[in-house]
Amino acid sequence: MDTETTDTIIRATGRSLCEYGYADLTMQRIAAESSVTTAAIHYHFDTKEELLNAFLDDLVDRFEQQVSCESSDPRQQLTTLLDAVFSPPKSSSDEFPVALMELKSQAPYHDTYRDRFHELDDTVRTVVTTAVEEGIESGYFADVDAEEIARFVSTAINGGHVRMVALGEEPAKTRNVVEDYLEGQLDWRPEERA
Amino acid sequence: MDTETTDTIIRATGRSLCEYGYADLTMQRIAAESSVTTAAIHYHFDTKEELLNAFLDDLVDRFEQQVSCESSDPRQQLTTLLDAVFSPPKSSSDEFPVALMELKSQAPYHDTYRDRFHELDDTVRTVVTTAVEEGIESGYFADVDAEEIARFVSTAINGGHVRMVALGEEPAKTRNVVEDYLEGQLDWRPEERA
Repeated sequence: MDTETTDTIIRATGRSLCEYGYADLTMQRIAAESSVTTAAIHYHFDTKEELLNAFLDDLVDRFEQQVSCESSDPRQQLTTLLDAVFSPPKSSSDEFPVALMELKSQAPYHDTYRDRFHELDDTVRTVVTTAVEEGIESGYFADVDAEEIARFVSTAINGGHVRMVALGEEPAKTRNVVEDYLEGQLDWRPEERA
Repeated sequence: MDTETTDTIIRATGRSLCEYGYADLTMQRIAAESSVTTAAIHYHFDTKEELLNAFLDDLVDRFEQQVSCESSDPRQQLTTLLDAVFSPPKSSSDEFPVALMELKSQAPYHDTYRDRFHELDDTVRTVVTTAVEEGIESGYFADVDAEEIARFVSTAINGGHVRMVALGEEPAKTRNVVEDYLEGQLDWRPEERA
């Protein structure tokens, strides 16, 4: 498959999803958003579901890259995760969290979307579990149940996403909730607030 | 306004929303779900937005009734809230959480929906804040920041809602997260697990 073309299509899918929403997303609109013809999009992706699977795969890949932290310091690993979740790149559209929430609402009807959301969730939980376990081992953190901490953090991240979309709340509010929790549980202080 | 008719329309709106989803919800479908004609629905509600406002108002009212607890025991007040959120009545549709998530995705485009979601959130946070403050005063709970606890609980409840829809996860998992947190913070033990 021609990577450059599929990349172009995937980017245009993201923009169209933000602009028109899930219900009004069509191959025609994606073509209009890009330099690619409707025929070419159909050549690469049979259905809207396939196209959105590719879009979500790309999202999962980029998220995994963002949270993969070169530092061996488990405190820095947690900060990198919180930055990736709560401070998305400025280039991303304001509507992106809404588009993502719409796709989450579609998950009950599309197992393939649901699989990708499980991948995202597994990524968050693995990063937290690994960092907490390493932090306990190296004496940075109090001795806690790392998987329980990870479940809390992932649930709060999901909650922050809904609150941003449904209530228009700043993601920083949820970041504070998570940081206060980690501070209390792990005896960890986020650097910027130390 | 004829309360019985509007009640019938609001119930039919809920069923149609669960069955067809937000994008495909029409006055015709709501009429087909009920004994009320399309003309009668238009007579009571000018637009789909007005109808969904009434649906959300009804939801807020019923939720407020569910969480209003006759017991003066703050521990029971928290249990009543968690029951209302995590153990909805058996009569409610499996699709209801999905329909509600779709409406949350629409909040950025409809301030009137957003206002109702703020009301729901305020209700949750007021119940928690009040119960925690009373529990501290009466010596049941440790001395904590009640509003901080309330923010945590509401964020986790929102997170549990997304996890149920996007991941197909049992709400009981999130209830455990909340209960463990309250247990740790307040020194409160949920009755059924004591």
